[in-house]
Amino acid sequence: MTVHEAHTRVLVEGPRPDVRVPVTRVALTNGETFDRYCTEGPGSAPEAGLPRLRAAWIEERADTEPYDGRDTDLLDNGRAAVRRGAAREEWPGAQARPRRAVGSRRVTQLHYARAGIVTPEMEYVAVREGCDVELVRSEVAAGRAIIPANVNHPESEPMIIGRRFLVKVNANIGNSAVTSSIAEEVDKLTWAVTWGADTVMDLSTGDDIHTTREWILRNSPVPIGTVPIYQALEKVDGQADRLTWQVFRDTVIEQCEQGVDYMTIHAGVLLRHVPLTADRVTGIVSRGGSIMAGWCLAHHEENFLHTHFDELCEIFARYDVAFSLGDGLRPGSVADANDAAQLAELRTLAELTTRAWEHDVQVMVEGPGHVPLNLVEENVVLQQDWCHGAPFYTLGPLATDIAPGYDHITSAIGAATIAMHGTAMLCYVTPKEHLGLPNRDDVRTGVVTYKLAAHAADVAKGHPGARAWDDALSRARFEFRWRDQFALALDPQTAESFHDETLPAESAKTAHFCSMCGPKFCSMRISQDVRDRFGSGVDAEAGMRQKAAEFLELGGSVYVER
Amino acid sequence: MTVHEAHTRVLVEGPRPDVRVPVTRVALTNGETFDRYCTEGPGSAPEAGLPRLRAAWIEERADTEPYDGRDTDLLDNGRAAVRRGAAREEWPGAQARPRRAVGSRRVTQLHYARAGIVTPEMEYVAVREGCDVELVRSEVAAGRAIIPANVNHPESEPMIIGRRFLVKVNANIGNSAVTSSIAEEVDKLTWAVTWGADTVMDLSTGDDIHTTREWILRNSPVPIGTVPIYQALEKVDGQADRLTWQVFRDTVIEQCEQGVDYMTIHAGVLLRHVPLTADRVTGIVSRGGSIMAGWCLAHHEENFLHTHFDELCEIFARYDVAFSLGDGLRPGSVADANDAAQLAELRTLAELTTRAWEHDVQVMVEGPGHVPLNLVEENVVLQQDWCHGAPFYTLGPLATDIAPGYDHITSAIGAATIAMHGTAMLCYVTPKEHLGLPNRDDVRTGVVTYKLAAHAADVAKGHPGARAWDDALSRARFEFRWRDQFALALDPQTAESFHDETLPAESAKTAHFCSMCGPKFCSMRISQDVRDRFGSGVDAEAGMRQKAAEFLELGGSVYVER
Repeated sequence: MTVHEAHTRVLVEGPRPDVRVPVTRVALTNGETFDRYCTEGPGSAPEAGLPRLRAAWIEERADTEPYDGRDTDLLDNGRAAVRRGAAREEWPGAQARPRRAVGSRRVTQLHYARAGIVTPEMEYVAVREGCDVELVRSEVAAGRAIIPANVNHPESEPMIIGRRFLVKVNANIGNSAVTSSIAEEVDKLTWAVTWGADTVMDLSTGDDIHTTREWILRNSPVPIGTVPIYQALEKVDGQADRLTWQVFRDTVIEQCEQGVDYMTIHAGVLLRHVPLTADRVTGIVSRGGSIMAGWCLAHHEENFLHTHFDELCEIFARYDVAFSLGDGLRPGSVADANDAAQLAELRTLAELTTRAWEHDVQVMVEGPGHVPLNLVEENVVLQQDWCHGAPFYTLGPLATDIAPGYDHITSAIGAATIAMHGTAMLCYVTPKEHLGLPNRDDVRTGVVTYKLAAHAADVAKGHPGARAWDDALSRARFEFRWRDQFALALDPQTAESFHDETLPAESAKTAHFCSMCGPKFCSMRISQDVRDRFGSGVDAEAGMRQKAAEFLELGGSVYVER
Repeated sequence: MTVHEAHTRVLVEGPRPDVRVPVTRVALTNGETFDRYCTEGPGSAPEAGLPRLRAAWIEERADTEPYDGRDTDLLDNGRAAVRRGAAREEWPGAQARPRRAVGSRRVTQLHYARAGIVTPEMEYVAVREGCDVELVRSEVAAGRAIIPANVNHPESEPMIIGRRFLVKVNANIGNSAVTSSIAEEVDKLTWAVTWGADTVMDLSTGDDIHTTREWILRNSPVPIGTVPIYQALEKVDGQADRLTWQVFRDTVIEQCEQGVDYMTIHAGVLLRHVPLTADRVTGIVSRGGSIMAGWCLAHHEENFLHTHFDELCEIFARYDVAFSLGDGLRPGSVADANDAAQLAELRTLAELTTRAWEHDVQVMVEGPGHVPLNLVEENVVLQQDWCHGAPFYTLGPLATDIAPGYDHITSAIGAATIAMHGTAMLCYVTPKEHLGLPNRDDVRTGVVTYKLAAHAADVAKGHPGARAWDDALSRARFEFRWRDQFALALDPQTAESFHDETLPAESAKTAHFCSMCGPKFCSMRISQDVRDRFGSGVDAEAGMRQKAAEFLELGGSVYVER
């Protein structure tokens, strides 16, 4: 079973009948229910795709129109497809014509928010976050939050990324030249969302990139991000010096038409920044960053992503694609954290943020990486200051480099800390980081680890309602409602299976102890017995003395017999 | 294989020939070596026990003497032994007579340090920590650090717990009434130390407590801690109200004679504190705390551990047992963090710290538990202030309650943070926390997770030399020295096996990529190529332009062909 039987998916109706927001309703054994944020409405058969939830909302705005999109090219799926002379395993569902803005209209959530328009996407988000819709609109209008929502990805269920809202988690999937298949990637998508990924990035760099992405988009209820330079590089045979603005622009439009919601653009890697990395312990560790650095050096020209940035903004504004301004010069080791190269790039990203906002394009800014714990806060403070509060989206950061195989943990430490200080979205790290491509289990471990880090930050920030989840679970724990403890757990199956390793009997699910301490040493049990006998709020000396006498008369034991 | 083949155990000689401190020497493929702190010298056969490393040091001080110890009692091993009429599986090695101070001499490291005496234990610690021995002596003298070293545990290799030194990790083992055996517990001890546990607590609460502890002590190269109230409770049939100072005192002496190095004493749970817990979400969650609270309420008398505290100090001073002042009222949920009950107890622990110091007894103070990340720092600040800098020893804390099954991670987040702010030792939490007794794999996961959290704190604190490990590993990573990356990893086997899941071929160990990105997208490789071609420290425009021309002439590709 993929979801505990106490869970049901409920659609909460918003201010208009077609705004119906999914929550996971947990039925507790004491008759109460607890609603958990969930990232996925009713699912789909992969071959048919998800319902086009937002299609009517997009159409009713009447500022976009369908058009004959770019012709797909065999090379969109890599050189293997060219050699074969055909794509393979194409998505069999009904293809919609792509849409884009009418003329030079700007069709972004930022544009609407600035104009004082409350979109259904904003209504949806407000229900989801349990906040006033005006908070959503005003934060989007100020650039302090984004709602990634490409008009060509109507399947996506709106979500918001911003420091005033719940901290979000992104999961990376995607194949590489060495491993994986389309079916595996679609399975990883579904799996990641099942465990709570708020967005998914398809970072494929191998074959079948276009087709893999089509399957993913048509089946994704969460926004999809990409790094288009990866596909562009495939189109020029992996030779960075052959990359051109034209190839890149064509790839971006291809992805805009498919429905990618946000794209990582490494426009902050400037020619003059590259030498700043020469004496680093780990040089440039961003794939996109190293590709663009290689291009800049090969041509001794400025990064074409930077010189053509306004054109990119114009394209993004026509589809409502959000920028994720890539930190191509992020540190790859704690030794390189917060160094001149990283901060020089951040200054450039701040300038680009302002330029994108001039085009009404939504922006988030990417952050590191590997940062010792004492330098983590500075990263958020500088980014929020320099980038005027644009949402920060960080990869970890890893608090130490010494634990390959455990980097979901080394990075969750940094992630919880940086989110507490204001990072809006965390990019997960799996146990395979630095070692290989994550498999299905790694995706689950990475997502669950990051959900707990994000929630720890929500609690630390005092986010309204965040602690209610902790309290509900702790009450279940204290009252020995084992089934409720499992059902409320971030990962019910793991919690239950760990419990059952030592006490598999059905009766143990109602026992007032577990194998950790056994019945006689269970402090929860003893403490409950004490409370039951002495009541809550006891403080009178006399009352306690009398209770003590009663307690001894009753046998004086707070333990069960073995 | 339990240790990667690149590892050898080397003994580093100190200022006297019998001070020989183990380090793990990692041989790197580039001819360099890297020495890692390790917690265990040459091992032992469990039946024979470890060499009595410190015996000569203890004897040469001539302030202790062997004596006829307390007679063991069948009840020391629980009611099952009484029913059987015999202990079972007793440790077969050579039994030494117990030692204690001559007369009322104080034989503690604190006493020596205050007297200006540098003991071999301090010399050993200084070599281990790579610091001046005067730092060791002065920190111990000030009470800001402890060297747990019972005269009856001469097998232990001295280590220090204090904020000026490397952050340490404790692993809890021990059976419960429901599960485990003596052999399993000895195996968990060895396993925990193999992975880097700095101390081990035997928290057994089931049968064979005395015998289990004997096996553990005779085979432990690290200090052993216990919570003697657990065994005392077993001796009175699990009935808290039948506990007496006499039973407890006898149990403490039994454990002093066996060689326990530090004992958790819940002397801060006062009668007047108990009502403060009545309205908590999770009441009292410490086993010792709930036992003593139950006793106080049953008798309506003050906690006998508190009323007899000076007698305890006199006993501890004769064996050099250190206090670990237990936080019996620690919060068991984020809702209860930093509340009146917790802080009232901490005030009492501060008073007890001063009283113990008057007897020259070493002290550390235990801390929580479950604490939201924004309240973590306050815990250390108050403890360090109120307790005059006595070492803080915390259990996690868990930064959220929602993730049973992942509490090694929720707590590692809190642990790294609290250690960065000055906690000296972290008590590990395993994935089984709240769910069951940890097995061998859980012990490993818990120790490795806490070692990385402790190291992240060392790096964040700028501890001299801490970052050298990160840098060595990052350099290996950047230079594609895969074997070195594995050998330097906190857990070499896991790192190597994760890598080999997708690229098992021997040749992949020298490849300039892994399956995460494949050869063409490996940023490390691209960045290295850039560095190789352009050199380090390049900053002249002209030089770069010339290099750019050369680069294109050479083919302009920084990628290998597939």
